[in-house]
Amino acid sequence: MTERGPVFGAAEYRRRAAALQAEMAAAGLDALLLTTAPDVFYVTGFLTRFWESPARPWFVVLPASGDPVAVIPAIGAALMRRTWLSDIRIWEAPDPEDDGVGLLSGTLCDLVPARGRVGLPMGPETHLRMPLADYARLAERIAPRRIADATAAVQRVREIKSEVEVAAIREICAIAGAAFDRVPEIARAGTPLERVFRGFQAALLEAGADWVSYVAGGAGPGGYGDVISPAGPEPLAPGDVLMLDTGAVRGGYFCDFDRNFAIGPAPDAARRAHAALYAATETALAELRPGMLARDAHRLLSEALSAQGATPGGGRLGHGLGLALTEWPSFTPKDATELRAGMVLAIEPGVQVAPGRILVHEENIVLRADGPELLSPRAPAALPEIAP
Amino acid sequence: MTERGPVFGAAEYRRRAAALQAEMAAAGLDALLLTTAPDVFYVTGFLTRFWESPARPWFVVLPASGDPVAVIPAIGAALMRRTWLSDIRIWEAPDPEDDGVGLLSGTLCDLVPARGRVGLPMGPETHLRMPLADYARLAERIAPRRIADATAAVQRVREIKSEVEVAAIREICAIAGAAFDRVPEIARAGTPLERVFRGFQAALLEAGADWVSYVAGGAGPGGYGDVISPAGPEPLAPGDVLMLDTGAVRGGYFCDFDRNFAIGPAPDAARRAHAALYAATETALAELRPGMLARDAHRLLSEALSAQGATPGGGRLGHGLGLALTEWPSFTPKDATELRAGMVLAIEPGVQVAPGRILVHEENIVLRADGPELLSPRAPAALPEIAP
Repeated sequence: MTERGPVFGAAEYRRRAAALQAEMAAAGLDALLLTTAPDVFYVTGFLTRFWESPARPWFVVLPASGDPVAVIPAIGAALMRRTWLSDIRIWEAPDPEDDGVGLLSGTLCDLVPARGRVGLPMGPETHLRMPLADYARLAERIAPRRIADATAAVQRVREIKSEVEVAAIREICAIAGAAFDRVPEIARAGTPLERVFRGFQAALLEAGADWVSYVAGGAGPGGYGDVISPAGPEPLAPGDVLMLDTGAVRGGYFCDFDRNFAIGPAPDAARRAHAALYAATETALAELRPGMLARDAHRLLSEALSAQGATPGGGRLGHGLGLALTEWPSFTPKDATELRAGMVLAIEPGVQVAPGRILVHEENIVLRADGPELLSPRAPAALPEIAP
Repeated sequence: MTERGPVFGAAEYRRRAAALQAEMAAAGLDALLLTTAPDVFYVTGFLTRFWESPARPWFVVLPASGDPVAVIPAIGAALMRRTWLSDIRIWEAPDPEDDGVGLLSGTLCDLVPARGRVGLPMGPETHLRMPLADYARLAERIAPRRIADATAAVQRVREIKSEVEVAAIREICAIAGAAFDRVPEIARAGTPLERVFRGFQAALLEAGADWVSYVAGGAGPGGYGDVISPAGPEPLAPGDVLMLDTGAVRGGYFCDFDRNFAIGPAPDAARRAHAALYAATETALAELRPGMLARDAHRLLSEALSAQGATPGGGRLGHGLGLALTEWPSFTPKDATELRAGMVLAIEPGVQVAPGRILVHEENIVLRADGPELLSPRAPAALPEIAP
């Protein structure tokens, strides 16, 4: 019988639970309620693509001390039993009369004193993955226990990756790097962009990705218009710049980086834009340090681009990643999150080449005490050309 | 410049908006607030894998009359402008000070009278894809406007697929069928299950899937233990039954069906189980009719399995699908949703072969006035064998 258990040994998950419990204690939280795939995976090692089905909610409760309790649909019991959790409470979902609210409220009442506080991530970049009407019922049923924001408790722990997590992200970065190396076989002048996207996803799987949660990109003369659209049937043409960006997954961990390619000789403006992006990234690789804020990283990259005579463009200039395609913080002018050693980050400068035409460039790093360590294989300094 | 627009023409989206507005009028709702990928895609045609990033919320407001209004991060503006929407309001996200709440509450105050009600899906199989703390701020800022449950309004419209939607689902079912036909090349005795999963995903892409949001399955002697675990390194062995299940996507529409294969000669119990599943599915294909309830479908399938001497197992016995891997209703003993002509459904009986060992079987249909029309190519009556 094929049975894949959690990604790491129990010690890793115990360390995580203890780290969360320390943050919870500091924040005065008596339990933590987790409902999303990355949060549940982080604490338990429970990894499944079944989250794709919106039909069933899943819950993990981490008490102030002791092991987490899973409150989940019966269909997940076999997989959850292979994690380090021993207290697994199940119901037959979906149940239109009570889809886990009774079981979850009972669990919270068991674990949290009547005047206690249940922490729930409800701040930026979070959402509650259960029906809102059931959440209202839950809040009523566990009263006088109150529900309080636990975003900071979860984010301050999850954002510092352990060495096994860093190794997992380095592995999927290497897999994506191997797939990017094959793009010149996949993308030729005349090839429809949608065929390029399919071929690149197949290359990621062949290189060792378990699955491909995200591929985006764009192509156009000297640059592309946006970076989130699906691919269409239009063929690549000489003079186009093609960008591919992937969040491929192995063992539950994501990479998130991109590469640019010119179809035939690159237009001058595109070569200059790529050089500016490369140089700005070099600056960030040399100068990012723990203790800087996310907005400092934004300024560092913006100024490096401006020093190259380039106009920043394309949104935020970097962000976290790991258990999701993107995590906090965001390299924007307003994000005051402190960068700390152990954070895994995407450095993602973008420039405007012409009105409505951009180039973006992205690498993944882990921030160390003495600066960034690359996890993605570094892009070439010069925009690579694919013979048309 | 490669620019892929919405999947269908504007008339299809206008029809959908009008259908939703009719339900809203009947329910006394003055606007509808949509936050999830399938709901936004349904009303606008806005299709992107960028939803994979949890960093940014996205909103569409459908007023009681008139066209929908998009309230979205600036990074999505170019793609949204290619849909039928003309009123597109953007902000620079992520913004830790105000991540769209001001813009969204202003929009709702524009469109909804002060004593009006804003509908939001908050019932079974829904979730709110925005931070809960921002939702609380929104509710406060739009008061005295109230927020009310709009689950039924959305589900009664979305669950009836138009002919262009049925055609889209038929197309991705055919693509998955072509990939299933290649499984004997991909899965041989000795092949690790994780390599089978990778090869099958690559086959789906080569057959024409835009992407593969879901692959699951299992393998084991005479049956498998669960159907939601990721694949491990264990090799397939003679006597194993392999099951692969996919939610592949083309043009934003999902299939969701599975196939079983015996590695070498099939054990008798597995052959009997497959025959029972096939026969129960035949019964459902012959007897399902509009006007039955979801629980009637459950009883029909359960009784058909029992008549074959099989023990039902593996969870609910069917469900909706289309814009998501799974949609309501659920074929369970408790779901009283009426089956209606135009619903696209997965018929998904499962049986227990031995303690902790199951076989599942799944087909996709569209329900017509005179019964089911198959969208997936029908599985073979006898459990197929792959020469070991």
